[in-house]
Amino acid sequence: MFAGLDIGGTNIAAAIGSAEGNVLAEASVPTQSHEGPQAVLARAAALIQTLIPNGSLQGVGVGLPGTIDRHGGIVRFLPNMPTNWRGVEAGAVLSRHLGTEILLLNDARLATLGELAFGHGREARDMVMLTLGTGIGGGVVLDGKLRLGPLGAAGEIGHQTIVPDGPLCGCGNRGCLESLASGPAFVGEGVRLMRAGMAPALFELAGGDAGRVTPKLMSEASDDSIAVLIERMAGYLAIAIANVINVVHPELVVLGGGVAALDHRLLDPLRRDVARRVGMFPADGVIIKRSMLGDRAGVFGGIALAAQRGIV
Amino acid sequence: MFAGLDIGGTNIAAAIGSAEGNVLAEASVPTQSHEGPQAVLARAAALIQTLIPNGSLQGVGVGLPGTIDRHGGIVRFLPNMPTNWRGVEAGAVLSRHLGTEILLLNDARLATLGELAFGHGREARDMVMLTLGTGIGGGVVLDGKLRLGPLGAAGEIGHQTIVPDGPLCGCGNRGCLESLASGPAFVGEGVRLMRAGMAPALFELAGGDAGRVTPKLMSEASDDSIAVLIERMAGYLAIAIANVINVVHPELVVLGGGVAALDHRLLDPLRRDVARRVGMFPADGVIIKRSMLGDRAGVFGGIALAAQRGIV
Repeated sequence: MFAGLDIGGTNIAAAIGSAEGNVLAEASVPTQSHEGPQAVLARAAALIQTLIPNGSLQGVGVGLPGTIDRHGGIVRFLPNMPTNWRGVEAGAVLSRHLGTEILLLNDARLATLGELAFGHGREARDMVMLTLGTGIGGGVVLDGKLRLGPLGAAGEIGHQTIVPDGPLCGCGNRGCLESLASGPAFVGEGVRLMRAGMAPALFELAGGDAGRVTPKLMSEASDDSIAVLIERMAGYLAIAIANVINVVHPELVVLGGGVAALDHRLLDPLRRDVARRVGMFPADGVIIKRSMLGDRAGVFGGIALAAQRGIV
Repeated sequence: MFAGLDIGGTNIAAAIGSAEGNVLAEASVPTQSHEGPQAVLARAAALIQTLIPNGSLQGVGVGLPGTIDRHGGIVRFLPNMPTNWRGVEAGAVLSRHLGTEILLLNDARLATLGELAFGHGREARDMVMLTLGTGIGGGVVLDGKLRLGPLGAAGEIGHQTIVPDGPLCGCGNRGCLESLASGPAFVGEGVRLMRAGMAPALFELAGGDAGRVTPKLMSEASDDSIAVLIERMAGYLAIAIANVINVVHPELVVLGGGVAALDHRLLDPLRRDVARRVGMFPADGVIIKRSMLGDRAGVFGGIALAAQRGIV
């Protein structure tokens, strides 16, 4: 048995499964990230122990939301955590708690592995995934292998510059895709439209409360202004995806994360814009779909990472 | 002995050499592309025959400026040629003229192979090349292998969208890097500055003649406006390069083509902007240099392609 662990800014998810991806048990708990790395890692280990109280694990694949020294098992930089994780020996700490081998990876790259091993990517040799959440993460699979680069940081599709003088991004650059089309970018613009009196349907759905505005709620609002907004977001995403198609020409692009829940309202204009943006060759052979595994892509990826080490 | 052949819009270059890249003879002639594909291909074959009149070739690697069906040896689309090359069986035609095996590749991908086999890329596993000429071509090498994708079209780095509503590009998209920072984009903006009275030094150098303005001449002009222009072009190029670094994190980026002759005036601001644009991880380990082989990268790539077929 193997475990997958996906430590996010909001929730920790865990699953126990076989190398073939048969999941026996899964669960999640709030991260409570303000308590700091040691408490979060202890909680993550305890979550796994509740799922497999007497069993023995052959390995755990772990996703963390940032850059990781995966050989040393050390955290480099987790931008969305309120406490400092830099230099935390997450691999060693989890190994002490769980008594088994721990393999760390960036969370979006882990989700990409999950989709590759057990989702839409099962038939694909060349695949790109974007996770559209609080941040925009990504992963690139070429010739069946996850591309990591010397720092494990290849695949940062969400940090392509889309608008040269655009909004400030968490990474320090301006106009990254993440600054324009992440969940917070989406919600921020929804709140603006609601406050400006341009989205009465959204106002009704949210009871006028900005704190209740989410991408999912926005997708249910019938306002024309929200439709325009979704098309604009689709346009930014399409630029990033078209750029990646121009550079590596994958056969499959998978979209995960909360914003992907907009489904056809996002995907239809996105596919149209990708076709328009790739002018040098026909890109209609590139399949663009929502993740098959959804929120579970990360824990499935953890099982794949622990069980099939050759894939990275 | 092998031959490399680089058929461009302006010139045809050829070289004869060994698998180790020892070049015995090389030459070039004007393409005279208005005469159409059959005349151009006959001229290219004749050029090789003048270089190796009695010898026997083991193969010829050929670059063409566009998209190629390399398995069928057929031209798909050459955007910068005045006559129609679509469907021309360039491989079969050259094979009839030369009596040896012909391998076709996009010209920028061929130059990338040349730089990989015999230039700065000799020590590199992961390398990206941009050719900054009439168009902006590119090539991506990962794990020592040129990435081509299902249509041989991966590596179109110059067709990333850099400014979403930017100038019309030859590929049909708007705001591609090629529309903003190619030789013609450079010259067009130089002519504007000269005509608007903002570049008196360039006016002097060109004798006021727009037809004499080239990137090289512009690099010699001391006008402040030209310095601002070079910085802006460097900024566009830096976005495209930073995007590729975020996605695949190569160890080496090589710049070829006429615009690369601007050398430090272009490379210094470009390196600074790349560092600023890649925020998720330190990109200072990525070496950015001018091509070692310059104009000869294509013919060297042709020799490499013919001699070392495993590299693609």
